[in-house]
Amino acid sequence: MKALVLEEKGKLALREIDLPTTVGPHDVKIAIDTVGVCGSDVHYYTHGKIGPFVVNEPMVLGHEASGQVIAVGSAVTHLKLGDRVCMEPGIPDPNSKASKLGIYNVDPAVRFWATPPIHGCLAPEVVHPAAYTYVLPDNVSYAEAAMVEPFAIGMQAALRAKIRPGDVAVVTGAGPIGMMVALAALAGGCSRVLISDMAQPKLDIIAKYPGISAFNLKDRPFAEVVAEETAGWGADVVFECSGNARAVLGLPALVAPGGAVVLVGMPVDPVPMDIVGLQAREARIETVFRYSNVYDRAIALIASGKVDLKPLISATLPFEQSIQAFDRAVEARPTDVKIQISLRG
Amino acid sequence: MKALVLEEKGKLALREIDLPTTVGPHDVKIAIDTVGVCGSDVHYYTHGKIGPFVVNEPMVLGHEASGQVIAVGSAVTHLKLGDRVCMEPGIPDPNSKASKLGIYNVDPAVRFWATPPIHGCLAPEVVHPAAYTYVLPDNVSYAEAAMVEPFAIGMQAALRAKIRPGDVAVVTGAGPIGMMVALAALAGGCSRVLISDMAQPKLDIIAKYPGISAFNLKDRPFAEVVAEETAGWGADVVFECSGNARAVLGLPALVAPGGAVVLVGMPVDPVPMDIVGLQAREARIETVFRYSNVYDRAIALIASGKVDLKPLISATLPFEQSIQAFDRAVEARPTDVKIQISLRG
Amino acid sequence: MKALVLEEKGKLALREIDLPTTVGPHDVKIAIDTVGVCGSDVHYYTHGKIGPFVVNEPMVLGHEASGQVIAVGSAVTHLKLGDRVCMEPGIPDPNSKASKLGIYNVDPAVRFWATPPIHGCLAPEVVHPAAYTYVLPDNVSYAEAAMVEPFAIGMQAALRAKIRPGDVAVVTGAGPIGMMVALAALAGGCSRVLISDMAQPKLDIIAKYPGISAFNLKDRPFAEVVAEETAGWGADVVFECSGNARAVLGLPALVAPGGAVVLVGMPVDPVPMDIVGLQAREARIETVFRYSNVYDRAIALIASGKVDLKPLISATLPFEQSIQAFDRAVEARPTDVKIQISLRG
Amino acid sequence: MKALVLEEKGKLALREIDLPTTVGPHDVKIAIDTVGVCGSDVHYYTHGKIGPFVVNEPMVLGHEASGQVIAVGSAVTHLKLGDRVCMEPGIPDPNSKASKLGIYNVDPAVRFWATPPIHGCLAPEVVHPAAYTYVLPDNVSYAEAAMVEPFAIGMQAALRAKIRPGDVAVVTGAGPIGMMVALAALAGGCSRVLISDMAQPKLDIIAKYPGISAFNLKDRPFAEVVAEETAGWGADVVFECSGNARAVLGLPALVAPGGAVVLVGMPVDPVPMDIVGLQAREARIETVFRYSNVYDRAIALIASGKVDLKPLISATLPFEQSIQAFDRAVEARPTDVKIQISLRG
Repeated sequence: MKALVLEEKGKLALREIDLPTTVGPHDVKIAIDTVGVCGSDVHYYTHGKIGPFVVNEPMVLGHEASGQVIAVGSAVTHLKLGDRVCMEPGIPDPNSKASKLGIYNVDPAVRFWATPPIHGCLAPEVVHPAAYTYVLPDNVSYAEAAMVEPFAIGMQAALRAKIRPGDVAVVTGAGPIGMMVALAALAGGCSRVLISDMAQPKLDIIAKYPGISAFNLKDRPFAEVVAEETAGWGADVVFECSGNARAVLGLPALVAPGGAVVLVGMPVDPVPMDIVGLQAREARIETVFRYSNVYDRAIALIASGKVDLKPLISATLPFEQSIQAFDRAVEARPTDVKIQISLRG
Repeated sequence: MKALVLEEKGKLALREIDLPTTVGPHDVKIAIDTVGVCGSDVHYYTHGKIGPFVVNEPMVLGHEASGQVIAVGSAVTHLKLGDRVCMEPGIPDPNSKASKLGIYNVDPAVRFWATPPIHGCLAPEVVHPAAYTYVLPDNVSYAEAAMVEPFAIGMQAALRAKIRPGDVAVVTGAGPIGMMVALAALAGGCSRVLISDMAQPKLDIIAKYPGISAFNLKDRPFAEVVAEETAGWGADVVFECSGNARAVLGLPALVAPGGAVVLVGMPVDPVPMDIVGLQAREARIETVFRYSNVYDRAIALIASGKVDLKPLISATLPFEQSIQAFDRAVEARPTDVKIQISLRG
Repeated sequence: MKALVLEEKGKLALREIDLPTTVGPHDVKIAIDTVGVCGSDVHYYTHGKIGPFVVNEPMVLGHEASGQVIAVGSAVTHLKLGDRVCMEPGIPDPNSKASKLGIYNVDPAVRFWATPPIHGCLAPEVVHPAAYTYVLPDNVSYAEAAMVEPFAIGMQAALRAKIRPGDVAVVTGAGPIGMMVALAALAGGCSRVLISDMAQPKLDIIAKYPGISAFNLKDRPFAEVVAEETAGWGADVVFECSGNARAVLGLPALVAPGGAVVLVGMPVDPVPMDIVGLQAREARIETVFRYSNVYDRAIALIASGKVDLKPLISATLPFEQSIQAFDRAVEARPTDVKIQISLRG
Repeated sequence: MKALVLEEKGKLALREIDLPTTVGPHDVKIAIDTVGVCGSDVHYYTHGKIGPFVVNEPMVLGHEASGQVIAVGSAVTHLKLGDRVCMEPGIPDPNSKASKLGIYNVDPAVRFWATPPIHGCLAPEVVHPAAYTYVLPDNVSYAEAAMVEPFAIGMQAALRAKIRPGDVAVVTGAGPIGMMVALAALAGGCSRVLISDMAQPKLDIIAKYPGISAFNLKDRPFAEVVAEETAGWGADVVFECSGNARAVLGLPALVAPGGAVVLVGMPVDPVPMDIVGLQAREARIETVFRYSNVYDRAIALIASGKVDLKPLISATLPFEQSIQAFDRAVEARPTDVKIQISLRG
């Protein structure tokens, strides 16, 4: 099968590679339609590794995917031939303690697409466990469905926040994940979202959504903005999505007494945290690692029209131009949020 | 001061009555602008009592109110002359155990407007504790602000439900409270709300809101509808708003495994509950009593545009026609949701 | 293999029967040491069915078991030959939605020992999934380990209650499950447990535990006792373990404002519930269905000495006298809590 | 009245000072019996300030107190002359947003005994709001009751942890607060507590409690101990009580997937936190600021015998030797946990 293979750091090839094709009793085979390019894919391309995960042998990239079921395992009951679907890219050991607890995202045994040494899904067909394959309602396109994976991180953040209806949320960092978090928080019950960044084009994109107000950090200290917008009380929930050390240090000035901080951004190294400042407000701090049990609800919010991800799809390139798609993603144009690759014939 | 006085069961008078006018250090005085007519006001009018609360002496009616601050107590800091406000009608003992716990709504010492023997607010001016008086943003009208009280019950239900983003909610009963609950649930994070009733005009009103689907119980068993709409899983949250014994008995057929039931409707007598059916799904059941700490968030959702209560205001009568307003409410026209009384000059 | 077989309603036989012996890759084989006799086993014996579960063909009884690992599947890593273990009797479909959520107890596909048509474990050897088999610390005996299953119900109730340290708990009904709940609640953070029943011998047994006070309903209304013992506030958590309609109706008089009711007892038919009474205290009501993810923590509490189940083992009979053991259980002597069957050579 | 006055940094005097004596309608007057010496009292003595709180004028020290009611305000109903009581030292504004929410500990308006410029209670008599004064059961001594205040911090930590019955807890730091947290966690539902420190005498004191295992950091890396004691899973709850930067950095190695970290220790400056390490386990992090609504439950656990604080009272000196008591506290003998001052005649 032809697939987009990361041969080694910096070297991509669209070439034939042997991939599993046997459909086990609990599996389905899916003809891939759309795959989004994720920052982690790009990072493996440019750096050859992420933390402890190193690309030591050729690996197929891609983990944000949608497609159509073309074969169904004998024990599968909730999917049938022709179903339009999207897929959760991490497969846990169902017998692990974490899986039994329902927190399969933190199962150390998880096999995750395009995380070495596991192949990703930038190929015409993949075999996947039916339990991690989700049917799409008619009004959700393949392109939107390939956005479910990054949106799922926003959903996980919104779930861990334990949003209460009407909460005011703050998001620090308007990258693709910050945007997903903002949309999930708003659809998930917040009355308003205040988002900050230094890149005006990103702020301009997200500010188009009603309910989201964008603030450029170059204009005014964000703590001042948040105080003003919340009558001095602070935000009920602060989503830290920048991974920036200064943003982390400034969290106590943003959060309300008894409020929550959700750490979504991933600073490479340990960063100083103002523990006493957070204690003075008795903040709860949640951390997020990928997601579990959110695909259903993410799809439901998209289908209902409460969340519109289409404006965040910046460009779509055909499979044959996959390498160009990645090179454009490497450019990181400030007006690009998500680049997708279409495998449709 | 002239006020709408319930002299005794069935007898209303718009007449002079002595009401408190002294503004204590923690109080404000408010010129009332709008008061909504609530089912409980009407019930006192038609029955002279609700449960243990009996109208034994003349009582001013009304507890859903908005207005403007015209005097400010010496210790008040967050309100000033001219502020447009709405008021929470129940005042607890701040030193009680319940108040210290933040659940002041269940403080046995609560004094609640228009609950005997406490006078309500259908009068040109009231004195009220500043702590239970909330400033309105400019884009929230007095009419909408007088809807905050009934909407607060919906908010309390949505809060107790612990909605998770993307939940599917079911509401049984499309009376005014069922409608408020549906709107709060949707704004509070649900992807969809399915609501049932037997009165088609009510269903027609609420079905106009995107995200809310209305079902007439005469057409088809609601359990069948819910199963179909949720792929057999059931609703994540079921809000019982009818107070109807049959609806209560049918709850297990509506709720998903691990889901929540919120009992909002108030059946006068004990009603049979299928405990084993609820256990089989290990449902969590929440009860609701008025509200606490929700006014801020209710106002925030209205101001943000996520909740639009204006279509539920069916008619507005001037203060001089207060008795007619009540008599129309007694009629209970199926197309009437909320009738308001305007005290503006 | 010889096993205790329920041939049909009222007819037990200790006889040869074909049982699975193949150890799959994720399984272990266990030499059974001790099996407790449960009320449900007895009910199948005396009535031939429980609700929708009917004994239509011969079925091995027993589901409260401990033993020693005598064979280990190829994929099993956390168990080894010779391990002393106890087993969770319900096996879900690991790919179901409920299992993925961590609430595998409410997976409709659960196969549960000695629930028709699934055989139980009253046999010398069983094959069981390793994921539902738990190693015993050295200081936990096989007899205690065979008590983990009924204690797990108490643990599930205590977990669902969301006990806060120092809570006062009330338990209505001092049967075996009520006792388990009382012990789990006390070890699980309550400062005190008040338990009620009409059978004095049961009350005498449980009252021997420090921290548990037992009250005979014949002496005084329990609501009066609870009010007195809680300075009129009510119990933070009420565990309803009687399944009695009168107890259910009386719940509002026992629970504190903002408190929790946990419905453990299973009334065969729907019973009247005082919804308005529960709303007036804004009680949260939890239901319990078996258990999930509690075996580890149950064993930890027994091993630590915080929970002593040994006094509740009333008699131990050898495997050859299994039928006598069941007949004694049918007698329901008020001083019998748990009867166990030993399969040791 | 004679009181222990901190004149300025380093200078204590037992001398006459004017203190409030008027008993308002919601107040009681209490004859102080016992006052514990707290680390914060000692810090004001040795440093003249704690963070932003500076001793600019003479201030009475002491905030851990018990005594007897000798006068009762006209509106007080739950206390009477002669009641034995202990007092919560922080008094919030009952009308603040934080108080209404039940989190009065984070009300910025709190007035806290012996926090400049508020006088403490090391005096023969104090006037105190009845709502923050708690009756003692007969079996709780004044000495124990004066331990309720530091134990309340342990209770707050245990509450914020949301302990589930049978959890394994880890406490880093065996100072007085670490000890209180360990006892609260154990009584609050944990099966075991593993505590670490470098000071062997402290470990020897706390290790005497059944259920608590103490480990000297000089012997072995604590992460190794925790892994071994939890079969590699990690602790369900980690209470960081040292305020030590190294302990904070090491938190991810101690906590289980999906577990909780409670930050009790207060590092003066921001300290590096390994956010990615905590995310990989999707840990929840709670912070603690003093306490709210825990006195009742703390007293209940002491009265029930589940918590025994008496072994932690290292010495009791008479009021006349208050300065000696403070000087001994300054010494910080490793075998001293709590020094108390008795005001009894």
